[in-house]
Amino acid sequence: MHRESLLQLFEQLRTGAISTEQAADTLTHLPFEDTGFAKIDHHRTLRSGLPEVIYAAGKTPEQTAAIFQRIAASGVNVLATKADAAHFAAVQTLVPGAEYHALAQCITLRQAQQPRHEGTIAVVCAGTSDLPVAEEAAITADLFGGNVLRITDVGVAGIHRLLAQRPLLQTADVVIACAGMEGALPSVLGGMVGVPVIAVPTSVGYGVAFHGITALLSMLNSCSPNTTVVNIDNGFGAAYTATLICRGQQKK
Amino acid sequence: MHRESLLQLFEQLRTGAISTEQAADTLTHLPFEDTGFAKIDHHRTLRSGLPEVIYAAGKTPEQTAAIFQRIAASGVNVLATKADAAHFAAVQTLVPGAEYHALAQCITLRQAQQPRHEGTIAVVCAGTSDLPVAEEAAITADLFGGNVLRITDVGVAGIHRLLAQRPLLQTADVVIACAGMEGALPSVLGGMVGVPVIAVPTSVGYGVAFHGITALLSMLNSCSPNTTVVNIDNGFGAAYTATLICRGQQKK
Amino acid sequence: MHRESLLQLFEQLRTGAISTEQAADTLTHLPFEDTGFAKIDHHRTLRSGLPEVIYAAGKTPEQTAAIFQRIAASGVNVLATKADAAHFAAVQTLVPGAEYHALAQCITLRQAQQPRHEGTIAVVCAGTSDLPVAEEAAITADLFGGNVLRITDVGVAGIHRLLAQRPLLQTADVVIACAGMEGALPSVLGGMVGVPVIAVPTSVGYGVAFHGITALLSMLNSCSPNTTVVNIDNGFGAAYTATLICRGQQKK
Amino acid sequence: MHRESLLQLFEQLRTGAISTEQAADTLTHLPFEDTGFAKIDHHRTLRSGLPEVIYAAGKTPEQTAAIFQRIAASGVNVLATKADAAHFAAVQTLVPGAEYHALAQCITLRQAQQPRHEGTIAVVCAGTSDLPVAEEAAITADLFGGNVLRITDVGVAGIHRLLAQRPLLQTADVVIACAGMEGALPSVLGGMVGVPVIAVPTSVGYGVAFHGITALLSMLNSCSPNTTVVNIDNGFGAAYTATLICRGQQKK
Amino acid sequence: MHRESLLQLFEQLRTGAISTEQAADTLTHLPFEDTGFAKIDHHRTLRSGLPEVIYAAGKTPEQTAAIFQRIAASGVNVLATKADAAHFAAVQTLVPGAEYHALAQCITLRQAQQPRHEGTIAVVCAGTSDLPVAEEAAITADLFGGNVLRITDVGVAGIHRLLAQRPLLQTADVVIACAGMEGALPSVLGGMVGVPVIAVPTSVGYGVAFHGITALLSMLNSCSPNTTVVNIDNGFGAAYTATLICRGQQKK
Amino acid sequence: MHRESLLQLFEQLRTGAISTEQAADTLTHLPFEDTGFAKIDHHRTLRSGLPEVIYAAGKTPEQTAAIFQRIAASGVNVLATKADAAHFAAVQTLVPGAEYHALAQCITLRQAQQPRHEGTIAVVCAGTSDLPVAEEAAITADLFGGNVLRITDVGVAGIHRLLAQRPLLQTADVVIACAGMEGALPSVLGGMVGVPVIAVPTSVGYGVAFHGITALLSMLNSCSPNTTVVNIDNGFGAAYTATLICRGQQKK
Amino acid sequence: MHRESLLQLFEQLRTGAISTEQAADTLTHLPFEDTGFAKIDHHRTLRSGLPEVIYAAGKTPEQTAAIFQRIAASGVNVLATKADAAHFAAVQTLVPGAEYHALAQCITLRQAQQPRHEGTIAVVCAGTSDLPVAEEAAITADLFGGNVLRITDVGVAGIHRLLAQRPLLQTADVVIACAGMEGALPSVLGGMVGVPVIAVPTSVGYGVAFHGITALLSMLNSCSPNTTVVNIDNGFGAAYTATLICRGQQKK
Amino acid sequence: MHRESLLQLFEQLRTGAISTEQAADTLTHLPFEDTGFAKIDHHRTLRSGLPEVIYAAGKTPEQTAAIFQRIAASGVNVLATKADAAHFAAVQTLVPGAEYHALAQCITLRQAQQPRHEGTIAVVCAGTSDLPVAEEAAITADLFGGNVLRITDVGVAGIHRLLAQRPLLQTADVVIACAGMEGALPSVLGGMVGVPVIAVPTSVGYGVAFHGITALLSMLNSCSPNTTVVNIDNGFGAAYTATLICRGQQKK
Repeated sequence: MHRESLLQLFEQLRTGAISTEQAADTLTHLPFEDTGFAKIDHHRTLRSGLPEVIYAAGKTPEQTAAIFQRIAASGVNVLATKADAAHFAAVQTLVPGAEYHALAQCITLRQAQQPRHEGTIAVVCAGTSDLPVAEEAAITADLFGGNVLRITDVGVAGIHRLLAQRPLLQTADVVIACAGMEGALPSVLGGMVGVPVIAVPTSVGYGVAFHGITALLSMLNSCSPNTTVVNIDNGFGAAYTATLICRGQQKK
Repeated sequence: MHRESLLQLFEQLRTGAISTEQAADTLTHLPFEDTGFAKIDHHRTLRSGLPEVIYAAGKTPEQTAAIFQRIAASGVNVLATKADAAHFAAVQTLVPGAEYHALAQCITLRQAQQPRHEGTIAVVCAGTSDLPVAEEAAITADLFGGNVLRITDVGVAGIHRLLAQRPLLQTADVVIACAGMEGALPSVLGGMVGVPVIAVPTSVGYGVAFHGITALLSMLNSCSPNTTVVNIDNGFGAAYTATLICRGQQKK
Repeated sequence: MHRESLLQLFEQLRTGAISTEQAADTLTHLPFEDTGFAKIDHHRTLRSGLPEVIYAAGKTPEQTAAIFQRIAASGVNVLATKADAAHFAAVQTLVPGAEYHALAQCITLRQAQQPRHEGTIAVVCAGTSDLPVAEEAAITADLFGGNVLRITDVGVAGIHRLLAQRPLLQTADVVIACAGMEGALPSVLGGMVGVPVIAVPTSVGYGVAFHGITALLSMLNSCSPNTTVVNIDNGFGAAYTATLICRGQQKK
Repeated sequence: MHRESLLQLFEQLRTGAISTEQAADTLTHLPFEDTGFAKIDHHRTLRSGLPEVIYAAGKTPEQTAAIFQRIAASGVNVLATKADAAHFAAVQTLVPGAEYHALAQCITLRQAQQPRHEGTIAVVCAGTSDLPVAEEAAITADLFGGNVLRITDVGVAGIHRLLAQRPLLQTADVVIACAGMEGALPSVLGGMVGVPVIAVPTSVGYGVAFHGITALLSMLNSCSPNTTVVNIDNGFGAAYTATLICRGQQKK
Repeated sequence: MHRESLLQLFEQLRTGAISTEQAADTLTHLPFEDTGFAKIDHHRTLRSGLPEVIYAAGKTPEQTAAIFQRIAASGVNVLATKADAAHFAAVQTLVPGAEYHALAQCITLRQAQQPRHEGTIAVVCAGTSDLPVAEEAAITADLFGGNVLRITDVGVAGIHRLLAQRPLLQTADVVIACAGMEGALPSVLGGMVGVPVIAVPTSVGYGVAFHGITALLSMLNSCSPNTTVVNIDNGFGAAYTATLICRGQQKK
Repeated sequence: MHRESLLQLFEQLRTGAISTEQAADTLTHLPFEDTGFAKIDHHRTLRSGLPEVIYAAGKTPEQTAAIFQRIAASGVNVLATKADAAHFAAVQTLVPGAEYHALAQCITLRQAQQPRHEGTIAVVCAGTSDLPVAEEAAITADLFGGNVLRITDVGVAGIHRLLAQRPLLQTADVVIACAGMEGALPSVLGGMVGVPVIAVPTSVGYGVAFHGITALLSMLNSCSPNTTVVNIDNGFGAAYTATLICRGQQKK
Repeated sequence: MHRESLLQLFEQLRTGAISTEQAADTLTHLPFEDTGFAKIDHHRTLRSGLPEVIYAAGKTPEQTAAIFQRIAASGVNVLATKADAAHFAAVQTLVPGAEYHALAQCITLRQAQQPRHEGTIAVVCAGTSDLPVAEEAAITADLFGGNVLRITDVGVAGIHRLLAQRPLLQTADVVIACAGMEGALPSVLGGMVGVPVIAVPTSVGYGVAFHGITALLSMLNSCSPNTTVVNIDNGFGAAYTATLICRGQQKK
Repeated sequence: MHRESLLQLFEQLRTGAISTEQAADTLTHLPFEDTGFAKIDHHRTLRSGLPEVIYAAGKTPEQTAAIFQRIAASGVNVLATKADAAHFAAVQTLVPGAEYHALAQCITLRQAQQPRHEGTIAVVCAGTSDLPVAEEAAITADLFGGNVLRITDVGVAGIHRLLAQRPLLQTADVVIACAGMEGALPSVLGGMVGVPVIAVPTSVGYGVAFHGITALLSMLNSCSPNTTVVNIDNGFGAAYTATLICRGQQKK
C-alpha cells in the first residue's frame, strides 16, 4: 500500500496535477501530528489495526490525560498501562467513558468495534503476587481481540497443580507465562505445550530476586526452546506479540 | 492423543487385559531411553514433528557423536548446534551423511521428509560479525521446514540500507533480528513491520558490549512492542519459536 | 596570558617592586575565594567566558542560595541545575531576578550580556519522558550563547518521524541526542548527520532499563563513530561541550 | 571431650605433674602440623571422623602431591577435588594407590575402613553437561560412607522424565540437585520430596547463564522452602553437608 | 500412599465401580482448592505435617487475612512471615487468636498440637541489627516443633565472645547463622561445630554491603564445607530446612 | 598481659586457691556484659584506650539510647555515628550531656579526659556535598585525640586550588581524602604527600556515580601506592585507622 | 544536495525522461554495494570526505582483506583498526601498499590526497600501557588530516609532570585523554584547558580495574563539564569525533 | 625544600644571575626524564627515599628491561612486580644482578644500602593459594627496610590455628592480611590486634569468588574499624603503605 501511494503521487506529478516541489514536500509529509510535548503517531494504528497505547508511568497525569483525550477523539479504542489512580482521575475528567483496572493498573476506553481474532491466549502466573502483571497481559490481549484463558497460582514447587491444567493449556495458541522469584514456570510450561511461550519476568520476590532480574535471566536460559522473553513486568508487550501471532494465523 | 492412550490403557484394565499393577507401571513408563549419560527424549519429536536437536557446546565430541548416532538411527532429521570441527569429525565417523556448516557451527542430517510450512522467516543481521548467529537461525529455520529470507549488513547507522529492504521485509511472517554492540536493529525493524520480531543479541563488540549483554538489555527495552528476546547468540531458539509461529498459522 | 602575568610578576621582582617572599606568595595566590563551605572558583569563568554553574542536587536550599547570591554579586550570568522548587524558593529570596524552569529543573539569572556564538545546537529527544533532560540541555545551550533547535518525540520505532526531520538536522553544528530505554537514537542520528553527536542517556524506562544504564551502554557501543557520551541525565554537560565545539568554530 | 582434656590438664597442674608454664604452653598447643606452605589440620578429621580433603585447583601438582602424601601417611582416606590429570600424575608418583575419577576430576585414596552411615543421598542432575559436578558430589558422598542414588538427565523441560523418578526420589534422606542454565530443577524437586534439597548451581550454559550465576540466583529464590544452596560447581560441599545430615540422623 | 490411592482407583475401575472416563478425570484431580486469587495447597501440609505458611510481603492485608482465615479454618497452625502491622490488623479481625511478633514481623496461630521433634536448633546472629531475621528463624523453628537456642551478638571482630559460646553451640543439631556486612560468622562457626550450618545473609550494612549481597557472596565462598546458604533475610527458609534435618534424625 | 593473667590463674590453681572446675569456668569468662539485645564489649575499650562507638543506622532510637546510656555509665567518652535527629532525641533524654553534630550525623559525649596523640590528621574533601562524610571523619579524629586539619572543596578539576594547599598538606601525618563522583582526589593527593592516604568514597553524584561505587572502584585502582580504601561514606573507619597510625608513631 | 537530486529525479519524471515505476525504483536505490558478506557503504565517505574504516577484530583475515581490497580499488585512503599480524598478512597479499602499525594494531593505506584541516588534536595518555589506544587515536587523527600532538606518561599521581605540559596543551583544539585504572586524567585535564576533552578509557589495570570499566565510570562522572566519553579502548572513535570538531571549525 | 628552591630561584633572578625568561623556564622544569615510551620520575624516589618500582604486567619484556636498566643506572634499588619469567629473562640480560622471586612474581635489584626502619610488618595469609600475593607484600616490605613476619595458612575455618598466632601478631606494628574466597580473615584479625590492618583480597577461589571481588567486598564491610583495603592481589600497595606507617613512627 505504501508503494501504491507512492505510485499515485508520482502519477499526479507526471500528469502535472502537482508540482515537483509539492511532490517533494508530500513525500516527507507523514501522518503524525504534534501535541507540543508528544507526536502522536496514527501510523501504527493504521498499519496494525490495533488500539492506541499510552505508557503512563513516565508521564504526569495531565500529560497522560491530554494524550488520551487526543487519541480518543479519533474514535479508536485506547489503552493506558502502568497508570495509577492519579492518572485515571485526570483521564476520567477529560474522557468520562474510560475505565480503570486497579489490579492491572490499566485504563481502557472501548468505543470502536475491535475485530476479534480466533486465537486463544493463555495467561499463566506462578503466584498471587504475579497477578498485576498477568492482568495487564490479559486485559491487553482481550482489548486487542483475543480469547483469554487465565490460569493462576500454578508455581512449579507444586508441580501437580500445574500438571492439572494441561488439558486447558493445550487449547492455547500462545502461552504468556508470568513469574517472579526463580522464574522457572516458562521452562516447565515450554515442555508441556507445542506453541510459543512468551515469558514475562515479574518484580516479585526479595533479596536476590533483584526486582525481577533473576527471573529474567532464568527465563532467557530456559531449556525449553519455544520460549522468548520480554522486559520485567511487561505484560502489555507479551500480549501485543501474542496478538500478532494469533492474527497472523487467522490471516492465512 | 495423550488422553486417548490413557483411555486405551484404562480400557485394557477394565477388560482385564492387564492387571492394576501393570496399569500403574505403564502409566509411569514414558518414551525416553537411557544412553548412560543422557536420556534421549523422543517425546518432543513425537509431539512437535520437528527434528531432534543436540546442543554440542557442553559435550565432548564422543558424547555428541554417540547421541547423534542414536537419534539418527530412528530415521529422523538431526541438528547439532554450537558444534566445532572436532565435534563434526566425531559425528562424521559414526554418521557419514552428516553435513557441517562451518560459519554457523551446525551439523545437520537430512534423511526424512520434513513437512514444509508456508511461512516466511526473515533473518536480518546488523553486521558481518553477526553472520554466525544469523546463519544458525537460518539453517535451523530451513531444516524445520520454512522459507528463509536472509538480509545481511543492515545496521541502523546506515538507515537507508535498512529502509531499502522494506519491501522484502514486508513479505515475512516473522522477523529474526540479530545484532550485537548497541542492539538497536530490532527497535527500528519493529516499527517497520506488523509481525512479531524475535531479537537475538550477539556477542559481537568490545569494551562495554559485554559479550552481548548490552545488546540484550537494549533489546529488552525496545520501544517496539512486537519484540521478544532470546539468550545471547541463541539463533536456534529464535528459529524454533519462529517455526512454531508459522506452523500455528498454517494449521488454522 | 598566564605566562604574561608570570613574566610581569618576575619583572616586578627583578626591578625590586616586590620582594622574593612576596613573589613566592603571589605565585601561589589564585583567584578563588572561600565561602566557608565552598570555594567559589572565578577562574573557570575568567578562562571560559561562560556563566557560572551550580549543581544544586547535592546541596541544601540554603547552601544553593548562598552560593548563587555570592556568584550573582560579581555581575555574571548564573545557572543552577537539578534544582527543585525548594531550591528556587531559597534562591529567589536572595536573588529576586532569578527565573525557574520547572520542567528542566533549572534556575537561571541573566544580568550580563552573554556573547552569542554562531553555532546551531540541535537538541533531539526520543520521547515525552526525555523532555526534562532535553530541556536542561536546551536552556544551558541557550544561556551559553547558542542557537537551539528543539526536535522532540522522534523515537526510532517510528523511523519515518525521525527521517522527516533530516533537513532540520542538517543545519546543526552539533547534535545532542537524549534517549532512555534502549538508547538507539544516537546510532541512527549519527548516520544521518556529518557533525558530532553528543549522546545523553536518560533515566527513562522500567525493568532492565536500569534507570538509564542500558541506554548508556547502548550509546557507548554505538556503531556511529561520531558519537560521544555523557553521564545519565547530564543534559548540562552535553550542552557545555556543544558550546565549546561551536565557540571553537567561531574563533577560527 | 574438649572440656575433659582441659580438666585433665588442670588436674596435672594441681598435682604438680606439670608446671604452670607448661600448662600455659600446652593450652595453646593444638594438633596441626606445618609443612612449610600449608598447615595440615588433623583437627577436623579427629572431630568429624571424615576423610581429609584437598582442594587442588589453587595448588601446583607438586604442592598437591606433597600434601596428599603427608595426609596419606597418617593412614586415613584422602580426597582431592578439582584435580586435573597433571595433579593426578604428581600424586600417583608419591602415592601409587591413589585413584583418578576423570569426569569428576577427583583423586581418592581408600586405605582405611570408613564407617558407613545408613542414609541415602540422591544426586540428581538436569543434563549431561552437569555430570562432572554431580559425579564430584556422588564420589564424595560415597567415600564419606553413604548410599548414593544417581539420577541423571531429568531437566524440567521434560517434566515427565522427572516425575517418573518420584518413587526413587522418595527413598532419599537428602537430595543433591545439580543444574545449570535456569537452575529450575531444585524448585520442582523441592515440591516432590519432604527432605532437605541441597542445590548445586553448575557453570553449564552460555550467554546470560553467566557461568552458573543465573542458576545460583534462581536456586536462592526457590519457592520450595526446603532448598539451601552452595557455591557454583561445589559438588563436594553439597555432599559434605548431606553426609552430616545423614550421620546426625544415624547418631540419634 | 500416593501409589496406594492409585491402585485403589484402578481397582474401582477394574470392578466397574467407576467408568474409564471417571478414572481419567479423577487422576488429574488433586487436593488443592481455589480461593479466586490463590490456590491453597493442602498437599504440602498433608505431606510434611508442618504448619501452613503465608509469605505476606507480596500481598495486601486483605489478601493475607483471607488466606490466613481459610487455612486457619482447617484447624492447623499457621505462620505468616514478613508481615507488617497492617497485615496483622487485617488478620486479627478475621482470626482473633492470631499473635504478632513485631521484631520478627511474623504472625502465628497455634490451635493444633504440633508434634515436637527432639532436635536442637541454634540460631546465632552477629549483631543487634540481625535480630529481626534471627527471630523469624527462631519463631519458625519453635512453631515447627524444635528446641531453639538463641545466641546473639557474637560477631567475629570480637572472637572471644563467639568462642565463649562453644559449649552451648556443641549441643545443637543444626546451626542457623545470621549475619550481614561481611558475613564471616558462618565460616568461623562452621569450623567450631560438626553439624550442618545454614547461613542466612541479612540486609544489614551500608555502602558495599549492597543490602546483603556481600554477606551472601561471602557465605557461598565459605571455607567451611558444612555451610549451605539461603536467600537474603530468609530466616524462615533456614528454619524450615533445619526442621527437616532434625525430623529426619528423629524418624530413624 | 593476657598471658600474665593466665599464669596468675594457674598459680591460684596450683596453690589450691581455686578448684580445677573454677579454673575452667574462669578461663571462659570474658569481660562483656549482656543488655538483652546487645553484648557490650568493654574489651575493645580496655585494649585500645579509645572511646566506645555505636553505629546507630541499623538501630531504633530506643536501642541506640539504651546502649549509649549503658556505655556512658562506665565513665568513658562515647560516639554514635549515622545518627539522625530521632536517635539524638532519644539519647538526649537518657544522657543530657550528649551533643549532636547535625552535618556529620554524629552524637558525642565527652566526660573523660581522652589522652591526645601528637599526630596531625588532614581531612580533605572534594566538594561541598562531601562535607557530611568529611565531618564524621574530623569529629571522630578529634574525639580520639588527634589534631585535625580540615581542607575542603579542592576537587581535581580545579587543580590549582588543591596545589595551593600543598604546604598545609605536608604537615599531616595521615591524610583522609573524601570524594564522590569520579573519586580522583586520592590519586592526586597521594602523589603530593609522603604519608599514608586513606580514601573515603562518598555517595555523592548521580547516574553512574552509583551512590559511591564508582568513586570506590576508582580509589582502589589509584596509581598512588600510598592509598588504602574504606567502605562508602565510612568517615569513622578512616579516622579510626588514622588514629591508630598516629598513636603508633607516638608510642615509639 | 539530497533534496537537489530528489528535485532532479522528479524533473526527469515530470518531463517523461523516466517512468513512474523507474522513479520509485531509483528512489530506493542507494549507493552501497554487496560483497556477499558485507554491504560496503560508500555513502559515508561521500558524505564525510573521510577515509573508509574497517573494524577488523570481529572479522577473519580473509574477510578483512577482501573488504580492504574492495575499498582500496575505489582509490580512497583506508584504515583498519584492531588488526593483528594475521589480518595484516592477509591484507598485504591483496594490497601491497598497505602499512602496519603494530603498537596501535592499525593497517593504513595512503593513496589519495586527504585534505588537511587546521585543527590540532592533543592525544594525551596516563601511562606506557595506554600507548596502544593512544596510538590508534593518533594514527587515525593524522590519517584524517589533523595535526597530532602526542603527550605521554602524564598520570595524575605525578601531577607536576602533567602541569609541565600545560603550555603545549593550550595549543590544542581538542584533547583526547586515554587512561586506564582510576581514569582520573580527563578530570584534571578538563580543568586545565578550555576546549572539549574526549575521554578514552583503556583496559589497563588489574583487579577492580575491570578491564576498563572503572576508568569508564570514572570518566562519565568527571567533575569537568567539558568531558565526553567513548567506549573502552576506542581510540578510533575519539579521533573521528575530534576530526569532525576541527573540520567544523575550519569550515566556518 | 620546594619553597627553598623557589626562593633560591627568585634570588638568582633578583640579583640578575638569570633572566626573567630563564626563571619562567626553570620554574616549569621538573626532574623527570623521557625514555620515549615512559617518563621516569625520579621525583618520587627523591621524596620518599624508597626504591623505584615497575609494574611489569602491562609492559612487554623489552619495555620492562629498558626501564629497569635505566633506573638501575642511577644506583638505587629496584623492584618489578607482576613479572613473569619472560620479563625476568629480558631484565637479566641487561641487569645481571637482578634476582627473580618466582612465587611472588617479583624482580629485585639490591645495590644500594636501604635505610631500615624499626617497624615490624606481619604478613598473614589464609591459605596456601594466597601465598603469591602474600610473598609480593613480604618481599616489598623487606626491600623497603622493614622487619617482616610471615604467618601463613591461618584461615578462619580453623580458628584455633589463628588464635595460636596471637602472641606473634601482637608484636607487629602493622598487619597485612591476604585472603581470597570469603575474605573473613581481616575481620577476625582486626579484633585481635590494636594496630592498623591492611586487607589484601586475593583472586583465590571459584564460582562466586569472582576472582577476588567477593573477598574485596567482604573486607570493605569489615566490622573491625581498624581495617583498610587495597585492590585485588595488590600485595605491593599494602606493603608500601605499611612501610610509610612504620617510617612515620620511626621519624617521631
